[in-house]
Amino acid sequence: MSQEYPSALFERAVAEFSKLPGIGRKTATRLVLHLLRQPESEVESFAGAIVRLKKEVKYCRHCHGISDTEVCPICASPVRDHSVICVVENIQDIMAVENTMQFKGVYHVLGGVISPMDGVSPGDLQIASLVERVAQGDVKEVILALSPTMEGDTTNFYIFRKLADYDVKLSVIARGISVGDELEYTDEVTLGRSIVNRTPFTGKSF
Amino acid sequence: MSQEYPSALFERAVAEFSKLPGIGRKTATRLVLHLLRQPESEVESFAGAIVRLKKEVKYCRHCHGISDTEVCPICASPVRDHSVICVVENIQDIMAVENTMQFKGVYHVLGGVISPMDGVSPGDLQIASLVERVAQGDVKEVILALSPTMEGDTTNFYIFRKLADYDVKLSVIARGISVGDELEYTDEVTLGRSIVNRTPFTGKSF
Repeated sequence: MSQEYPSALFERAVAEFSKLPGIGRKTATRLVLHLLRQPESEVESFAGAIVRLKKEVKYCRHCHGISDTEVCPICASPVRDHSVICVVENIQDIMAVENTMQFKGVYHVLGGVISPMDGVSPGDLQIASLVERVAQGDVKEVILALSPTMEGDTTNFYIFRKLADYDVKLSVIARGISVGDELEYTDEVTLGRSIVNRTPFTGKSF
Repeated sequence: MSQEYPSALFERAVAEFSKLPGIGRKTATRLVLHLLRQPESEVESFAGAIVRLKKEVKYCRHCHGISDTEVCPICASPVRDHSVICVVENIQDIMAVENTMQFKGVYHVLGGVISPMDGVSPGDLQIASLVERVAQGDVKEVILALSPTMEGDTTNFYIFRKLADYDVKLSVIARGISVGDELEYTDEVTLGRSIVNRTPFTGKSF
């Protein structure tokens, strides 16, 4: 049981920081004391950046990713392949795929996965807008890059059914053992799938 | 090498969070996305609490701890023993000592310890004001509760010399093995000191 510090202003700031995910009271106190040691302009710049983001940020009209403009730079880019859409859960996943430098298409951010346990139904996600993009006819392939969880699988299957009537190739990112993984420590579901979905060996290392 | 997300507003907020101690880019991104999912009023309340703290917080005239008023509730309390001052490095330490419920005196926050390596000299700390409090004559004991480090020891010694001319009892919080520590894993300096500074056994457990 930790006692409160006798300053309402201080306690209030600590309480606000403690609301953030993964930030406990101790870390919150440390962060608040750090900010308190900074010049006022720094603190205002910190607070201002967050409020400005919340007030001014836009969601890209096409992919629903975060953007400063109506259409995000990726969707607006003429060098990207607009006929291939990679479906991801959130914007961190866009960054993760971009960092691989293996994808030259465009994205579609669902905003989560179907999860009845967490009260997330298909209507809460950007699935209708994905179907709409496909319905326009220029999309050749939709790559599903959701988490390899039951919720991700459910969402994959839901999208599969929604897109069944359209002439579009649907694929799922490969699941298998990770680079560097040891076989004996790989769970049997992953290892089993990686045997079933084995790929021809071409003599080249990936 | 992580790529930047193509939104300057977003990158700015992530950069601000990344400046906080112990917050890397990944955690910063997670926190910013969390705030982005909150209603605008919540985000404004978060930012407002921090700015308000920085602008309105006061430092107690006596102990230099954080306070909403000129004199903090501890220094203003008639039930605390104002003749015993516990000297601590920072306000977290006040909370730590308060949580023990073993101290009924008042505090003095130095704002750090003497550390030539970090460019902290005695003039940067609230040492002169401590001497002044003692010089007023009502203080019977000063308890030094600084970190058991070289810097803490240096600061203890500096204060010891500064208070040498005053009729005040100077003590240091006991150092020894922690409750629950195993003797064989205790470092020899700590164990050695705890033997030299052994205390009479009264038959009562602490």
